[in-house]
Amino acid sequence: MSESGSCDAVVLLSGGLDSSTALAWAVRKMGWRCATLAFDYGQRHRIELDASARVAAAFGIVQHCVLRVDLAAIGGSALTSEQAVPKDHQDKSSIPATYVPARNLIFLSMAAAFAEAQRATRLVIGANIVDYSGYPDCRPEFFASFAKTIKLGTKAGVEGLDLCIETPLIHLKKSEIIALGLELGLDYALTHSCYDPSADGRACGHCDSCLYRKQGFAELGREDPLPYTI
Amino acid sequence: MSESGSCDAVVLLSGGLDSSTALAWAVRKMGWRCATLAFDYGQRHRIELDASARVAAAFGIVQHCVLRVDLAAIGGSALTSEQAVPKDHQDKSSIPATYVPARNLIFLSMAAAFAEAQRATRLVIGANIVDYSGYPDCRPEFFASFAKTIKLGTKAGVEGLDLCIETPLIHLKKSEIIALGLELGLDYALTHSCYDPSADGRACGHCDSCLYRKQGFAELGREDPLPYTI
Repeated sequence: MSESGSCDAVVLLSGGLDSSTALAWAVRKMGWRCATLAFDYGQRHRIELDASARVAAAFGIVQHCVLRVDLAAIGGSALTSEQAVPKDHQDKSSIPATYVPARNLIFLSMAAAFAEAQRATRLVIGANIVDYSGYPDCRPEFFASFAKTIKLGTKAGVEGLDLCIETPLIHLKKSEIIALGLELGLDYALTHSCYDPSADGRACGHCDSCLYRKQGFAELGREDPLPYTI
Repeated sequence: MSESGSCDAVVLLSGGLDSSTALAWAVRKMGWRCATLAFDYGQRHRIELDASARVAAAFGIVQHCVLRVDLAAIGGSALTSEQAVPKDHQDKSSIPATYVPARNLIFLSMAAAFAEAQRATRLVIGANIVDYSGYPDCRPEFFASFAKTIKLGTKAGVEGLDLCIETPLIHLKKSEIIALGLELGLDYALTHSCYDPSADGRACGHCDSCLYRKQGFAELGREDPLPYTI
């Protein structure tokens, strides 16, 4: 752990396409010294924690921290229980089965605590409302309200050190996100997106996350470097 | 884990004097079916987790859940690190060394997720601003802002199921809290308050938490049933 005030920004890094692009943006476009946070939250597969570490290493992040938080004990989601992950439909009208109750709220709260301990002033999250309009905790009004809450509820906030929530991808289409990452030299072979990978780590190609990813690369006319089971 | 919608309220229960009184209020005064949540957050001593389980059992709570969350990895507090716990001064002017960055925010976020999975509509926390005026995450304006944030950021909130944050002790003096608990039949021998207990579990009598507790019982002219090292 580095000294207090040693990073400008804390980046939530799941190792997925969006969070990895958000890190590329923070490091290479904004020039911020970043610490990265991944969460070991009882997800059904651990492949994303490996992807997160790979991406952090590729960007030379010296402070990559994995925090344990027991969301599986809370339940209520296909991502942390035995519920089936839905396949082959992109349901934008309702909240998906892969919604984890209050997940971004919990992750942001822990990231805010980490940022406070580090005296960082920015918190970067690769949230996006274009593809994932069904997730309430990806909406700009949620992030704005959260920022007010931490201003009121943290020592740093009360002392005048504002923590700005940065959501660089919030209004981008998946193809625009990929274009941004490629422009910034992000190797998408390092990332991982699938909700339901095979035992050998290949993406299923059928869950929402795979469908959006494949569609994004297709729209851009670029090849997705990830191996798929199909 | 009981069925969805099987409890009215989720109560944060550390096993301390305040949270135990808040549970007594929710169960015996309000008549709510309660689930209780304790957090295994890397605190230096585990005695409070035992106290929490004892108090839940005394109130017949069938759904007492301990969630693991790794606050020690975040650092920044005397309660989760090797920093010394301050003794023999009740500092009301600044934020104490026992402040854990964004702790209530993290606990409330996880409790909100748990409440959402259970379809509970109330979240009870024994926060208090009279004795602990230095903690920003114990203030009414923080709780009000948090309630707005979860309304915006959760599926339950978006679907119209409001989660009300109940802070029954917020304006009470310690002696009034104790009087309320005694009136409701809470046995304070089951609770635990000390920030820095001895190896055999006795309270130090000198940390902020012990000082406020002793003062509360003294003002009320009642005997504190806890054993102290001094």
